[in-house]
Amino acid sequence: MTTAEPHETIRVGLEERAYDILIGANLLERAGEEIAARMPGARAAIVTDENVAAIHLKALEAGLAKAGIQSTAVVVPAGEQSKSFSVLQTVVDAILAARLERRDVVIALGGGVVGDLSGFAAGIIRRGMDFVQVPTSLLAQVDSSVGGKTGINTAHGKNLVGVFHQPKLVLADTSVLDTLPEREFRAGYAETVKYGLIDRPDFFEWLEANWREVFAGGPARARAIAVACQSKAEVVARDERETGDRALLNLGHTFGHALEATTGYDSARLVHGEGVAIGMALAHRFSARLNLASPDDAVRVEAHLTQVGLPTKLSDIPGELPDAEQLLAYITQDKKVSRGALTFILTRGIGQSFIAKDVPSSEVLTFLRDSLAR
Amino acid sequence: MTTAEPHETIRVGLEERAYDILIGANLLERAGEEIAARMPGARAAIVTDENVAAIHLKALEAGLAKAGIQSTAVVVPAGEQSKSFSVLQTVVDAILAARLERRDVVIALGGGVVGDLSGFAAGIIRRGMDFVQVPTSLLAQVDSSVGGKTGINTAHGKNLVGVFHQPKLVLADTSVLDTLPEREFRAGYAETVKYGLIDRPDFFEWLEANWREVFAGGPARARAIAVACQSKAEVVARDERETGDRALLNLGHTFGHALEATTGYDSARLVHGEGVAIGMALAHRFSARLNLASPDDAVRVEAHLTQVGLPTKLSDIPGELPDAEQLLAYITQDKKVSRGALTFILTRGIGQSFIAKDVPSSEVLTFLRDSLAR
Ligand SMILES: NC(=O)c1ccc[n+]([C@@H]2O[C@H](COP(=O)([O-])OP(=O)(O)OC[C@H]3O[C@@H](n4cnc5c(N)ncnc54)[C@H](O)[C@@H]3O)[C@@H](O)[C@H]2O)c1
Ligand SMILES: NC(=O)c1ccc[n+]([C@@H]2O[C@H](COP(=O)([O-])OP(=O)(O)OC[C@H]3O[C@@H](n4cnc5c(N)ncnc54)[C@H](O)[C@@H]3O)[C@@H](O)[C@H]2O)c1
Ligand SMILES: [Zn+2]
Ligand SMILES: [Zn+2]
Repeated sequence: MTTAEPHETIRVGLEERAYDILIGANLLERAGEEIAARMPGARAAIVTDENVAAIHLKALEAGLAKAGIQSTAVVVPAGEQSKSFSVLQTVVDAILAARLERRDVVIALGGGVVGDLSGFAAGIIRRGMDFVQVPTSLLAQVDSSVGGKTGINTAHGKNLVGVFHQPKLVLADTSVLDTLPEREFRAGYAETVKYGLIDRPDFFEWLEANWREVFAGGPARARAIAVACQSKAEVVARDERETGDRALLNLGHTFGHALEATTGYDSARLVHGEGVAIGMALAHRFSARLNLASPDDAVRVEAHLTQVGLPTKLSDIPGELPDAEQLLAYITQDKKVSRGALTFILTRGIGQSFIAKDVPSSEVLTFLRDSLAR
Repeated sequence: MTTAEPHETIRVGLEERAYDILIGANLLERAGEEIAARMPGARAAIVTDENVAAIHLKALEAGLAKAGIQSTAVVVPAGEQSKSFSVLQTVVDAILAARLERRDVVIALGGGVVGDLSGFAAGIIRRGMDFVQVPTSLLAQVDSSVGGKTGINTAHGKNLVGVFHQPKLVLADTSVLDTLPEREFRAGYAETVKYGLIDRPDFFEWLEANWREVFAGGPARARAIAVACQSKAEVVARDERETGDRALLNLGHTFGHALEATTGYDSARLVHGEGVAIGMALAHRFSARLNLASPDDAVRVEAHLTQVGLPTKLSDIPGELPDAEQLLAYITQDKKVSRGALTFILTRGIGQSFIAKDVPSSEVLTFLRDSLAR
């Protein structure tokens, strides 16, 4: 059909829910072909945000049309605020208004916000429509587009409402990242580093040496995305519904979510990946303080994140922060809390993260107090 | 613990999602004991409607307290209108405000409306909380509380948004039906008759002979509920997500849903089970017209439904009805439509229902025209 540019394929091994992640340049052009091969006869609704629609929607529509796939576009405002009940309802209504059926497909074209929101919509319309992720942010390519977690935020916290709904296909077009704002790229880079810190010390070392090439684009970027997707695919295949070690992927996220919540999900102050960067730095410092890991590792993690321009300290967040008690209150409301005991992802060193249950909240509180003073 | 009154237990065989349906008198008293045995340590949110709360909430709360289970009550307005995005959001917020965690439990105390709404809430909070059904209407006891279908309505149609989320336990307390309005009892009776019409001709015959005892209460009532639950449990175990013959349970529902929609879900005019009664009568007449079944069977079905006081004809619905074209438009928007071809549950006779694909819409239209004129 088209002269296929080279791309990498990673399989997420989930038996009857297994699917491919394709990673490579100019994949939007091939979207129709790849979707038609897997979901013959499906019509499509593309959910995207205003920023992405302005730059990449036409290319995707053209890519679908080439394979004879009709599509309707649903454009939502850009930003975390769109992960709400009211925008969810708008998206659901638009998809129903387009009269799509269960075997038609919802395509998420955008970052993690669009992916989480439209994946949730796809998961609940007619109790589950087919779903394809076309992630356009680095964060979405290395993390949120893979694994089937979908959802929205509520006043009680982030991602507290949603479903597990696996996509049928993920198309990570590395070229679309060229238009991503630098700050967003860095935020996605934090999630990429995460896989090194969880259990791939060699990958962390490789990133320390090659991060400039990853930021510049080309094969190092595709390589980093592929390693990240491979890591995530393996964890998801082992533990689809996060009853076990999938929780490792939350490294940096318990602190990160609390920071996002207490800064009102205001992206001017903090975007998700920045929260994760600070959260990972805190997790390493907290582990050192609990004598679980060497303080040198915390220093090394902080140095690398700082080098690429990511925040690592609470004081790196512009504006007022709540006090330690309030931060802790957010943490205990976070969904990784089980029966009142605090569960954290801590580490024994770089690439040696583990799930720590029963972390005393008094320790967390003192640590937060010190971190706020830093 | 308590002096257990006799009850019947039916197992829904869904492997790791398998669960028990308990059927018997005064089960509310035992609710705490049964829940604590299956979900040790869980706290509870009871979702109920204003009518049911006024009569039965105290008994359930007492039954839970006896086993040391703390509970919060969330009371929604009674009626189909509560199956909406806005009430869903209210319920979700109330459950989150009570700080329930993933292994805590949402208990639906009410009819199908409360069950569908709160099951959906339980299915999406923290991507799935534990859920227990305590159905209080006959319809909910014989049908909606078993099988894991949950959802809400939208302007585009009924139950178009929802998830599959199986309960961990169903407690069908036959005593609570004593306070159910007669009209609602009859509506639930229509769904009971459905199982006879699908594939249990002997059960239909038994109902023809024993319906007065079923309405009066006592062992015949419990017997009818148990047969219905057993039928539903078997179908659900065979086809949990309705990719195959679970669709048989929609006998009468394609017409029924269209009637509910076109009467604006106005329970003064039509409740769900009445729509199903008319729908089943129509399905039998339509089958006779297509020469699939003997007209005598349609007459027999109609006679029994009429005898118990259920509607069977379009003209039995008070107020104006839309024309045949509009009814058909609702039917094609219904979720049992696959790629534009109309799928109906038709029959070869009593207890011989089957899934008919590719029913020509022109036939449906003429049939609706004639039925409207009747
Ligand atoms: N489901 C999961 O497993 C999972 C995992 C991690 C994060 N998340 C969620 O992901 C969200 C964050 O995702 P995100 O960082 O992608 O945020 P985002 O979707 O808001 O995208 C960031 C910004 O970049 C813009 N953008 C995206 N692609 C672009 C492109 N190619 N060119 C120009 N602009 C572009 C967007 O319009 C937005 O303004 C959070 O809500 C988080 O909770 C989910
Ligand atoms: N999930 C499924 O598989 C499934 C199957 C069939 C129907 N349904 C849904 O079920 C709903 C209809 O259920 P329903 O008929 O139970 O309606 P309902 O929940 O509205 O209950 C009917 C009325 O009876 C009242 N009531 C209930 N129990 C009572 C009691 N013991 N004493 C006094 N009053 C009582 C209610 O307050 C309400 O006014 C529809 O929304 C339908 O879509 C779902
Ligand atoms: Zn993240
Ligand atoms: Zn029904």
